[in-house]
Amino acid sequence: MMEDAARIEGLLQAMTLEDKVGQLAMIRADFDAAGSTLLAPKVADITAGRAGSVLDLRGASAILAAQKAAVEESRLKIPLLFTLDVLHGYRTIFPVPLGEAAAFDPDLWERTARAAAIEAAADGIALTYAPMLDVARDPRWGRIVESAGEDPVVTARFAEAKVKGFQTDDLARGDALAATAKHFAGYAAVNAGREYASADFSQRTVEEVYLPPFAASVNAGVAAIMPAFIELAGVPLTAHRALLTGVLRERLGFDGLLISDFFAVAELIKHGVAADTAEAAALALNAGVDIDMASGTYTDGLPEALARGLVRIETIDAAVRRVLALKLALGLFDKPYARGENALAPATVEAHRALAREAARKSIVLLQNNGVLPLSAQTGRLAVIGPLADAPGEMLGPWRAAGEASEAVSFLDGVKAAFPHTVIVYANGAHIPAALEAARSADAVLLCLGETANMSGEANSRARPVVPEAQRALAEAVFELGKPVIVTLTSGRPLVAPWLFEKADAVLAAWFLGSEAGNALGDILSGAVSPSGKLPLSWPFDVGQIPIYYGERPTGRPADPENHDTSKYIDAPNEPKFPFGHGIAYTTFDYGEPRASVETLRAGESVAVEVDIANVGGMAAEEIVYLFIRDPLASVTRPLLELKAFTKIKTLSGERVTARFDLTTDDFSFPDADAIRRIEPGEIEILTGPSADAALLTRCRVRVVTVD
Amino acid sequence: MMEDAARIEGLLQAMTLEDKVGQLAMIRADFDAAGSTLLAPKVADITAGRAGSVLDLRGASAILAAQKAAVEESRLKIPLLFTLDVLHGYRTIFPVPLGEAAAFDPDLWERTARAAAIEAAADGIALTYAPMLDVARDPRWGRIVESAGEDPVVTARFAEAKVKGFQTDDLARGDALAATAKHFAGYAAVNAGREYASADFSQRTVEEVYLPPFAASVNAGVAAIMPAFIELAGVPLTAHRALLTGVLRERLGFDGLLISDFFAVAELIKHGVAADTAEAAALALNAGVDIDMASGTYTDGLPEALARGLVRIETIDAAVRRVLALKLALGLFDKPYARGENALAPATVEAHRALAREAARKSIVLLQNNGVLPLSAQTGRLAVIGPLADAPGEMLGPWRAAGEASEAVSFLDGVKAAFPHTVIVYANGAHIPAALEAARSADAVLLCLGETANMSGEANSRARPVVPEAQRALAEAVFELGKPVIVTLTSGRPLVAPWLFEKADAVLAAWFLGSEAGNALGDILSGAVSPSGKLPLSWPFDVGQIPIYYGERPTGRPADPENHDTSKYIDAPNEPKFPFGHGIAYTTFDYGEPRASVETLRAGESVAVEVDIANVGGMAAEEIVYLFIRDPLASVTRPLLELKAFTKIKTLSGERVTARFDLTTDDFSFPDADAIRRIEPGEIEILTGPSADAALLTRCRVRVVTVD
Repeated sequence: MMEDAARIEGLLQAMTLEDKVGQLAMIRADFDAAGSTLLAPKVADITAGRAGSVLDLRGASAILAAQKAAVEESRLKIPLLFTLDVLHGYRTIFPVPLGEAAAFDPDLWERTARAAAIEAAADGIALTYAPMLDVARDPRWGRIVESAGEDPVVTARFAEAKVKGFQTDDLARGDALAATAKHFAGYAAVNAGREYASADFSQRTVEEVYLPPFAASVNAGVAAIMPAFIELAGVPLTAHRALLTGVLRERLGFDGLLISDFFAVAELIKHGVAADTAEAAALALNAGVDIDMASGTYTDGLPEALARGLVRIETIDAAVRRVLALKLALGLFDKPYARGENALAPATVEAHRALAREAARKSIVLLQNNGVLPLSAQTGRLAVIGPLADAPGEMLGPWRAAGEASEAVSFLDGVKAAFPHTVIVYANGAHIPAALEAARSADAVLLCLGETANMSGEANSRARPVVPEAQRALAEAVFELGKPVIVTLTSGRPLVAPWLFEKADAVLAAWFLGSEAGNALGDILSGAVSPSGKLPLSWPFDVGQIPIYYGERPTGRPADPENHDTSKYIDAPNEPKFPFGHGIAYTTFDYGEPRASVETLRAGESVAVEVDIANVGGMAAEEIVYLFIRDPLASVTRPLLELKAFTKIKTLSGERVTARFDLTTDDFSFPDADAIRRIEPGEIEILTGPSADAALLTRCRVRVVTVD
Repeated sequence: MMEDAARIEGLLQAMTLEDKVGQLAMIRADFDAAGSTLLAPKVADITAGRAGSVLDLRGASAILAAQKAAVEESRLKIPLLFTLDVLHGYRTIFPVPLGEAAAFDPDLWERTARAAAIEAAADGIALTYAPMLDVARDPRWGRIVESAGEDPVVTARFAEAKVKGFQTDDLARGDALAATAKHFAGYAAVNAGREYASADFSQRTVEEVYLPPFAASVNAGVAAIMPAFIELAGVPLTAHRALLTGVLRERLGFDGLLISDFFAVAELIKHGVAADTAEAAALALNAGVDIDMASGTYTDGLPEALARGLVRIETIDAAVRRVLALKLALGLFDKPYARGENALAPATVEAHRALAREAARKSIVLLQNNGVLPLSAQTGRLAVIGPLADAPGEMLGPWRAAGEASEAVSFLDGVKAAFPHTVIVYANGAHIPAALEAARSADAVLLCLGETANMSGEANSRARPVVPEAQRALAEAVFELGKPVIVTLTSGRPLVAPWLFEKADAVLAAWFLGSEAGNALGDILSGAVSPSGKLPLSWPFDVGQIPIYYGERPTGRPADPENHDTSKYIDAPNEPKFPFGHGIAYTTFDYGEPRASVETLRAGESVAVEVDIANVGGMAAEEIVYLFIRDPLASVTRPLLELKAFTKIKTLSGERVTARFDLTTDDFSFPDADAIRRIEPGEIEILTGPSADAALLTRCRVRVVTVD
C-alpha cells in the first residue's frame, strides 16, 4: 500500500497536465464491419497519453495491441483500463438481472458474476459496468430489465453478491473484473417511465430506497460507481456534488472511481447547467466525477477550466490518484497483459453452461397453474407456438456482450430435449390458421409470447408495457380451441395482460433466460425440478396502477370496499395482478408462526427469528421465504411492509424445515424527520411468509428498548 | 383592531379549557330524511360551548336556530362559524374549477366566486372550503376536477381571483364568505393517482410547483388554509410543522386559520405517527392546525395532551385567538344573524344565471374541428345522442352545494333553443340500433359522451381515465354512418380516447358546465360566439404518459426521431394529444414576434413585453395569449417552459390587437440548489403564443444584469 502510494505520487510528479487529463479520459473503440477496433487517431491518443481507459474494445488480440501501445509506446507507460458492459454474462449468457433477481439467491448471483468475469477477463476486459442497482418500480422504463426489482434490500444483497463475484477478494487476479455500481441515484424514477427524463423525489426516498444498495456496494468494496444520466430535482447527477462527494465519498467513505455515464459530462450543457465544455468539465469534476466517458469534455475542457479558475489542480490530481490506484489494484502495472493471456478452457465453458441452465431454471417464475403443469412425459403431442418459441437470439435479451444467438438454446429445442417421447409440432404464429392447425391435433399447447430483446433495455421505454397487441389475436384464437394452454412470457418487465391471465392454464415469467433458456424451461415443464423463482417486483394488473410496489406508506383512509371515501380506484383493483414475492411451486407449503429469540432488545442487540415451513405437497421443492417488518408507530410514517431478509430452503415432500433470520436493531432504523437514521423505541411487527401478500403472512412482535 | 384584540383577550380570560377547546372543535351536522339538521346532542354541545364551528348545516332557518343557541344560550355567547364546500356555485352552479380554469379569465373567476358567496351567505354560510389550489398533473386523480389544472401561475391567479370574489375587501359584509385555500400541499401528487395515497417529491417541487398558489392566496388575504389529507415523504400534512408553521406562518406571514380536512386529525393514528387521540391532537395543534374538523380529536384529546405535557396552553390560546379573530372579522359577534337574514332577490338569481351561461360558454374548449362547426342555423335535422345529452343533473358535476338538477339546462334543451329551425331527434344511446335510427335521417350528429358526475371528484380515482368503454361501441357505430359527428366530452378530467379523436369531425371539452350547460353549448355550436376556452392542462394521448405536463425539465438527450438513445417511448408519442393552452376558435390568429421594452434589466426592474395578434379569419373572437419564459442556463436546471402570464384579447375579424405583459425580475427568480429563491444574471428567453406547443411560439430575449 505504501509502495502503491509512492508509485502513484512518483507518476503524478512526472505527469504533465495533459498526462493527467489523459488518465481521466475514456475513449470509445471505433467500429468497422469486423466489429470494434481502434483507428489510428485513437491509437495516437493512447501513445500520447491522452487516454487512460477504453470503452467497448472487444477481443483479446485487439486489447493486447492497444495495451502494448500504452505500456510500450507511451512516455509514462501507464497501462490502459479496458471496460465493457458485462451485465449478465459475457459469452455464456445468464438470465437478465431482473430474471436472475427472481431466484432470490445471493450465492447464485455471485457465481454467475464470477463466471462472467472469468470469460470477460479472458478477453482482456478489466472493468464492467455492473451491477446496476437502480431500485425500479416503473415497468414502462426499459432498463428495469437490468435491475433487481423494486426492493432496496434485495438490491443491496444483489449488489454485494455481484461485487464479490466480479471482483473476488483480490482485484489483481487475472480473472477479476472491477465492478461498477450504477446508476447513482434514482434513474428508475424518470418521469412517466420515459428514458432519460427527469426525476423528482424527496431526500427521504434517497435515504430509504435508492441509497441502500449503493451503500451495500461500497461496503462490499466496489471499485467504481457511475452517476445516473438524469437530473434529480434540478441537479443532474453527473454534477451532483451533494450526493457524489457529500454522500458517497464523505459519508460512506467510498474511495473508488466515479465514472460518468456515456457522454453524460457533455450532456450537462443540454441540461442547461453548463455554458460550454469547460464549465461542464468543471461541474462534473468538482462534483466528484473522476472519469469522463467518451465525450472528450475533460480532454477539451479541463485545461480551460483550470485556466479560468473553475477547477483546482488538486482536484484533478485527486482524480488521477484514484485512476492510478485502481489500475494498480487490478495488477495492470505489474501484469498489463495478464487478462486476455489465456483462452478459456473447454471445461470452464462447459461448467458455465451448466451454471447458465441452473440460473435460468431458478429464475423462471410460475405465475399461475391450474394443474396442467408439470406436463406429463407421456404427453403424446405438444404444439409449441409463438414468435418467442424458436428465437434463440431473443433469449439473450439486451446487453448480451459476446453472447451469440447460435449458442443459445431456444424453447423449442429445450422442450424437444425434455420430452423425447412427445411429438412436438411448431408454428411461429405469424400465420394464425397455421398455428391453429398445429394446435388442433395437440394434447397441449405451449404458447411462447412476450417481448423481443429490442423492446427491452436502454431507451426502450414503453407507455404500454403490455403483451404486444399482435400476439393477442393469436392467443385468443388458441384459447378458443379449448386445449390446455401453457404460456411463457419472455420479457424484460412485467407485462400487463388481464385477458391472458383469465384464460391461460399456466403462465410462466420467462424473462430473457440466456444461453440455456430452452433447457431450463424443459426442466421446469417436465417437472424435473419444481419452479422456485419468485417475483422481485409487483406485476401490475393495469398500466394505470403504475408505479405500484409493496412498500407503500399508510394512508389515513385504507381501502375499504364498504366505504367510498377510502384509498382506491373506482375502475381497477389497488392490488397488483401478482404481488412481490409471488411464485408457485409444484408442491404446497404451510407456514407456521414466526418465533423471536427475545421479546425485547436494546439498540445494538440482535434477535433471531425462526419460522417452520412444511412441504405438504407431493414434490421436493425449494421455497423462498421472506421476512418483513412493520413499524406501526414512529415519528415519521413507515411503509406498510419493509423486507428485511429472505432465504431459500430446500424441502422434500412432507418435510418441515425451519428458516432462520438474524436481525439487529439496525434493521429497524430509519431516517427521522431530519433524514438522520435512528432507532426509535417501540414495538416492531415481524412478518414471515411466501410473498408480500398480507393475507399469507404470519407474525410476531418484538419491542425495542433504547437506553438514553 | 385594538378593540378587537381587547375583545379577544377579554374572552380568553373568561374561557375555561373546555371553552377554548370548544372553539377549536368543528362539529358536523346530522342528516335525516329532510336533509341536514342538528340533533339534540349537538345542540347541547353548542349551548355548552363545546363547538366553535359547524360543517354541512344547510338552510337559513336551521343555521339561524343553531346560531341562536350559541349566541343566546351559551355562557360566553360566542357565535358559531357555519361552513360548507361552496366550490363552483351554491344554488346557481358554475362550471367545475377545471372547466372554469379553461376560461383563463381572472375577472370571471372572481365574479362567479362573488355570486356563489352571495347565494351561500344568503343561506347563512360564512366560510367555504374553496378555492382548491392543488396543481394537478395526474388525470387518474378524481379531484383534478376541483383544480385549476397543471400550472402554478394559473393556479396562483385563480387563487387571487377566488379569494377576492368570496371575501371581497371586507369580510364583515353580510354577503362575504371566508375562503379556505386547500389542500396544502401536493395532494394532487398521490402515488399512481390513487386517492388518499402518499406523495413524495422534492423540496424544489414544493417551492416551484405546489407553494406558489398558496403564497398568492396568503397575499390576497385568504382567511383559512386546509392541510392535505395525505402525507408527504413520511410526514402527514396535518402534522407537518415545517410546512404549516415554518413556511405558511413564519415565512409567508399567514395569520389566518388552519382548518384540518375532514377527520384528518384522527387519521394521524392510521398514518402511524400518533398512538392515540391525545397524541394525534398534540401533533396537529403543534404543527399549526387550529381547528379539528369533525373528528372530535381536539375535544377528546387536547385536555389529556395538556395533562401529559404534549402541548402548551399558550399554543391552544393562540389557536383560539385566531378562531375568534376570524369570527370578529366576519362580523359574527356584532351581527351574528346578518348572513341568512335576507332571501336572494329574483334579479340577483337571474343575473347569476346569465353569469353561469357566460362562464360555461367561456369554459368550453374546442379541441378539434374540421369545419363542421359552427353548425348552420339551416341544418335541417340534428340527432342528439348519448348518455350525457339529456342529463341536466350530470351537468352540475361533483360538489354541487345547493344546485338542483331541475334547474339545470341539458345539452338537448340548449340545442333545441339555439336551433329553433332545426328538427332535433334524440336518443340516449343505451340502445345502439335506436340511436343509429335517429342518426341515419339526420344531417349531423351531436354525440354527448363522457363521465357522469359520480365518476369525478373525491375518491373517484380512475386507473383508466378514458371515455367509458360502453360508450365506444355507440360512437364507433355512429361514426360508421359517415355523417358529420360533433362530440361533446363531459368530464372532470382529460379523457384518453385516441380512437375518438381520429374519427370525430369536431370535439368539444365540455367539462361539467353547470346550470347553464345546454344554453352555453348552444351559443358555441350555433356560432353565436366563437369558442375561446383553452386547456389548463395537457390532455394525454395515452394513460401510460401520465404524469404529463408542459413544464418538464430538460433531459441531456432530447427526443430525436433519428437517434434511438434519446428520451422517448418506443410505442407512443412523447407529446400529449393536446398541449396545455390548446383550444381553437372559429377564426384564425397570426402571432407576431414579441417585443421587450428593454434589452437588459437589473434585479428589481421590470420589462414590458408586447406582441401583436391579428385575427385573420372571418369572425370576431377572444383569444387567450400566453407568455412563457425559458432560462437556458442556470445554476440548477430550469423547466423547458415556464408560464409567467396570460391575457385574453378581444378581436374583430381582420383586426390586429397588441397584448401587453409586465414582468419584473422576480418572474425570473427560482429556488437555487439550497432552495432559496434567487435571481441569477443571464439571458432569459421570452416566448409568446397561443399554447405551450413550442412550434407555435414566437420569441425574444432579455438579459438580467444583477449588481453585486
